[in-house]
Amino acid sequence: MTDAILQMGRQARAAAYRLAQLGSDQKNTILRAMAAALRHATPELLVANALDMAAAASRNLTPAMLDRLRLDEPRVEAMAAGIGQVATLPDPVGQIIGSWQRPNGIRIEQVRVPIGTIGIIYESRPNVTSDAAVLCFKTGNATILRGGSEAIHSNRAIAAALQAGGTAAGLPEHSIQLIPFTDRESVAVLAGMDRWLDLIIPRGGKGLIETVVSLARMPVIKHYEGICHLFADAHADLAMAVALTVDSKTQKCGVCNALETLLVHRDLAPGFLPCVAAALRAKGVELRGCDTTRAVLTDIAAATAADWRTEYLDLILSIKIVDSLDQAIAHINEYGSHHTDAIVTDDAATAGRFLREVDSACVFHNVSTRFADGGEFGFGAEIGISTDKLHARGPMGLRELTSYQYRVRGTGQTKGGKALSANG
Amino acid sequence: MTDAILQMGRQARAAAYRLAQLGSDQKNTILRAMAAALRHATPELLVANALDMAAAASRNLTPAMLDRLRLDEPRVEAMAAGIGQVATLPDPVGQIIGSWQRPNGIRIEQVRVPIGTIGIIYESRPNVTSDAAVLCFKTGNATILRGGSEAIHSNRAIAAALQAGGTAAGLPEHSIQLIPFTDRESVAVLAGMDRWLDLIIPRGGKGLIETVVSLARMPVIKHYEGICHLFADAHADLAMAVALTVDSKTQKCGVCNALETLLVHRDLAPGFLPCVAAALRAKGVELRGCDTTRAVLTDIAAATAADWRTEYLDLILSIKIVDSLDQAIAHINEYGSHHTDAIVTDDAATAGRFLREVDSACVFHNVSTRFADGGEFGFGAEIGISTDKLHARGPMGLRELTSYQYRVRGTGQTKGGKALSANG
Repeated sequence: MTDAILQMGRQARAAAYRLAQLGSDQKNTILRAMAAALRHATPELLVANALDMAAAASRNLTPAMLDRLRLDEPRVEAMAAGIGQVATLPDPVGQIIGSWQRPNGIRIEQVRVPIGTIGIIYESRPNVTSDAAVLCFKTGNATILRGGSEAIHSNRAIAAALQAGGTAAGLPEHSIQLIPFTDRESVAVLAGMDRWLDLIIPRGGKGLIETVVSLARMPVIKHYEGICHLFADAHADLAMAVALTVDSKTQKCGVCNALETLLVHRDLAPGFLPCVAAALRAKGVELRGCDTTRAVLTDIAAATAADWRTEYLDLILSIKIVDSLDQAIAHINEYGSHHTDAIVTDDAATAGRFLREVDSACVFHNVSTRFADGGEFGFGAEIGISTDKLHARGPMGLRELTSYQYRVRGTGQTKGGKALSANG
Repeated sequence: MTDAILQMGRQARAAAYRLAQLGSDQKNTILRAMAAALRHATPELLVANALDMAAAASRNLTPAMLDRLRLDEPRVEAMAAGIGQVATLPDPVGQIIGSWQRPNGIRIEQVRVPIGTIGIIYESRPNVTSDAAVLCFKTGNATILRGGSEAIHSNRAIAAALQAGGTAAGLPEHSIQLIPFTDRESVAVLAGMDRWLDLIIPRGGKGLIETVVSLARMPVIKHYEGICHLFADAHADLAMAVALTVDSKTQKCGVCNALETLLVHRDLAPGFLPCVAAALRAKGVELRGCDTTRAVLTDIAAATAADWRTEYLDLILSIKIVDSLDQAIAHINEYGSHHTDAIVTDDAATAGRFLREVDSACVFHNVSTRFADGGEFGFGAEIGISTDKLHARGPMGLRELTSYQYRVRGTGQTKGGKALSANG
């Protein structure tokens, strides 16, 4: 198995060199062919998925996991439509980030280029096979996909359709490879082959990410949890604070940009808490509060220390009353996951301090946390939301799947032939 | 020891939050105070360095290592002058990378912010203590420094001077911390504390970098070796090809952007090889060639397979004759270290293909490889030359020591209150 995976790595590197030379039009033609092939393969995809669903039935998967695993015609159509959409997006590769001339006459260009080879390690949702491979391909990267055992038949069928459709339209061989092994050892081999893989992106639960982080020798872009906060400041508009809290918590609660902890300034609490509690309860939200909160909302459960560090992904909200902006910021920086945090206030200076001092990828003023999303940011496509600070932070679009290169042109300049440099 | 290092990590995180809020003027004032303190501490630094030099004498260090370890008045002055220079550079923190408004009215700003906390693990040269800490501070990052045992007295004295001078001018406590332990275990503790360190930059030999890469849970920016190539194309100007080869190889041979392998187009070889060999030998360079090269230069040694993967850092050059541009590109992508590679040619199309298809951080046309340098690129300061593709590639200046954050301002927008989004 190790040799087979290393061989895929060598092949991916070779494919990456060919991919880097494709023009945008060629890539878009290939993308449209992949979309058509996926639509055409719908019957095969549904048969393959039925095998996975049958195996899942004997594995005690939760209803939510079964739903993530399931393919039907609308879901296949959504995958294919997603590919067509990616074909319409601007291609960042080849873009000149900056160019300048030095006093000695050399001319420097910083140009966007593909990263090279990207490993995607993911769980359950088979559409990741298509979504991730297509975004990596659009940006000229070769991908090695390693999905979970629960979706192996579906993943194989999707990859085969993309490869067949793409190849007929000029997709370089080995641009998109799916690892046929689903054991943990295959992750270890991938994570160790930094010669062949420039980047790994794990897509899945915290356990999977932890495993990849502890094994990987190459960079990993992590999409850890979203423990998102909303701080209702003393100078918040009451109605807006209620609306944004309810939207952030309940518009969709199982996602990383949903609200998990509500912080309330003590001066706002008496008027605000009863209103927001009523609105949240009307949506079925369970509330847990600090002692001060429970002095106002006497019938809610106590939040324990663990609550402040919990991503519920469910209709549960923890509430804490704070004495000041400083205390709100300190709580978020200490207990949050540096994903997305919002303030509701009419005071511009307070908002400014919150946006500057909260150490999160997305900091929002008078906006629902649910807008932390590549689509909402206007990126057109999203490979995920990075909780890292290096390379990519927050919503990741196509641009974040590129690197850059310095291309320098001169007329024979030598270092020895010029005046002494300080950097000698 | 573990607890002490973890405590330094916690302190660094707290310091980073304070550092992120300092204005550029405040930071520059602190930098000038650190420079003055370093100058003032020259006698103490020389005493401390004498202890390291005495210990080194009994340790069988090479003359080159002893030279790297040694401090004298000009070297201390150079460190202090370097700090003064950093104070004059533009501060990237707070720069708005982009800003745009969405159809729903929310306004998005992508703003440069410090990375946070950076660990620097380095060997021998004590000036790294000052250089790295100062560049990290200028960009609002807290640093934890872990130097080698051979320079521990010098490193302590330098860090103490920077801390004392800085603190008097308002440097937040724990902004610059030096780990007093120099054993391998201390590296393992640093590499494991991804909660407290956002990034590790190892500065030293391949063995050190390998160790950090295999242990680190957080991103590592690597400065691996530079196996740099120059390709003298069939359409090269002979005199320019000779001048650039000699400069790239001999202007300073112990550095990562020096030339290690010369590739020569077979059509150029008969006229070029004797000229370049004579010029290189006049500078004392030992030549090793492929069989075809040795048919022209009959008195040189044979290059073995290992030569193509060797960073000599010495007056040695391997030479290979290739049949085509394709073969040159393939050799570089296979055997090079993706650092800096140059072509000499008068043919623009050939140069264009070389620059696009060689997968290296710096690709040069008619320029000496020795210009791959932050100073030569106009960055003002350089923390190193990254051989990674993520976050920073090639010469790294201040900008590469920053991350970014999305600051979003709205007027109460909710996701549920708007038309259905495709990314919902």
